[in-house]
Amino acid sequence: MEAKEISKAVVKRLPRYYRYLGELMEEKVERISSNDLSKKMHVTASQIRQDLNNFGGFGQQGYGYNVEYLYTEIGKILGLDTIHPMIILGAGNLGQALANYGDFEKRGFRLVGIFDVNPVLEGISVRGIEIQMISRLPEFMKENQVEIAILTLPKNKAKEMAKILIENGIKAIWNFAHTDLDAPEDVIVENVHLSESLMALSYNLSQYRNEHTEK
Amino acid sequence: MEAKEISKAVVKRLPRYYRYLGELMEEKVERISSNDLSKKMHVTASQIRQDLNNFGGFGQQGYGYNVEYLYTEIGKILGLDTIHPMIILGAGNLGQALANYGDFEKRGFRLVGIFDVNPVLEGISVRGIEIQMISRLPEFMKENQVEIAILTLPKNKAKEMAKILIENGIKAIWNFAHTDLDAPEDVIVENVHLSESLMALSYNLSQYRNEHTEK
Repeated sequence: MEAKEISKAVVKRLPRYYRYLGELMEEKVERISSNDLSKKMHVTASQIRQDLNNFGGFGQQGYGYNVEYLYTEIGKILGLDTIHPMIILGAGNLGQALANYGDFEKRGFRLVGIFDVNPVLEGISVRGIEIQMISRLPEFMKENQVEIAILTLPKNKAKEMAKILIENGIKAIWNFAHTDLDAPEDVIVENVHLSESLMALSYNLSQYRNEHTEK
Repeated sequence: MEAKEISKAVVKRLPRYYRYLGELMEEKVERISSNDLSKKMHVTASQIRQDLNNFGGFGQQGYGYNVEYLYTEIGKILGLDTIHPMIILGAGNLGQALANYGDFEKRGFRLVGIFDVNPVLEGISVRGIEIQMISRLPEFMKENQVEIAILTLPKNKAKEMAKILIENGIKAIWNFAHTDLDAPEDVIVENVHLSESLMALSYNLSQYRNEHTEK
């Protein structure tokens, strides 16, 4: 099956299917109907049928989906069937939180290095990996295969570091710095701008309040 | 001006305009043309004109936008002109990272409490706020005005805590736990599912690789 056949809208929903199917596997559920999955996920059953038709293997009518099969197929589409060596730039609270997030490792995101500019942090271990000074980064990238860099640095440092990463052949950047990065087309950038998510929440709050005080 | 007039698609882009306008203000820029803003933001000038027309006050043709005016108006729409008292549930690395994020406070998101289940953390101060035991939460919410709760707890605790928050009148939940919460319509939930963002990145990586090895 080729990943390319699947539409962007479906792809956006795949991580959520993947999560729910993973939970079902933990509960030892082997098969599930689109109706039951629909109730669990608060998505219409017809949406689920349409989305999952992309993966074939949906079995006979009334027989339900094979949970493990779907989980594995969706995992492949999401690129979770290969190892992604990953480094973290910025060993503050957020960097350490991400370093300690065990679920990433389970899905093939293997942390191979942590870097910071603060000499006080040098040599301190996070999940068995010693924090190194950022000046060591180019050398490290020559000696080790690194695919993904996680940027948890202040925004004034982030652009400069992105440049060094790109010069040294990084494939993807997961950017938590509150700024947009300039990257060439062949470098994947995925932004997590936390303030923007908080502003969306505050917008919805004031929207709700306006609607309910006008009544 | 009423927030309701603005379409959802525009609202989604507002935090990004807000960020860029804030940067311009820091650089003491008073006016900017849609063309210049377009180059900076990598959005078409016509998209910018269309979006910002919602706010009136765009001045004469060729005269550009008043940066501070737009920044203030967008801030109001986003609900950033009022104080939002906020608590954090889960004082691990992620909770502490968010507690230490000074930019939130500047925009009216005022941290008033931090809670955890781990007795080792009790009484430790994060940005001058002592970590309390979660058993104190209902009492705290009766005594203090709390609008937003940030959930940085493991997923098995998150649903239970959401229930307690909702029973005690929380208005909005910013959910970092890797699970969907059941909340009534009048409680705003904004999810930050970090794994899903990482999966989107890994999908784009393998997609790019497939396209370029097929050649």
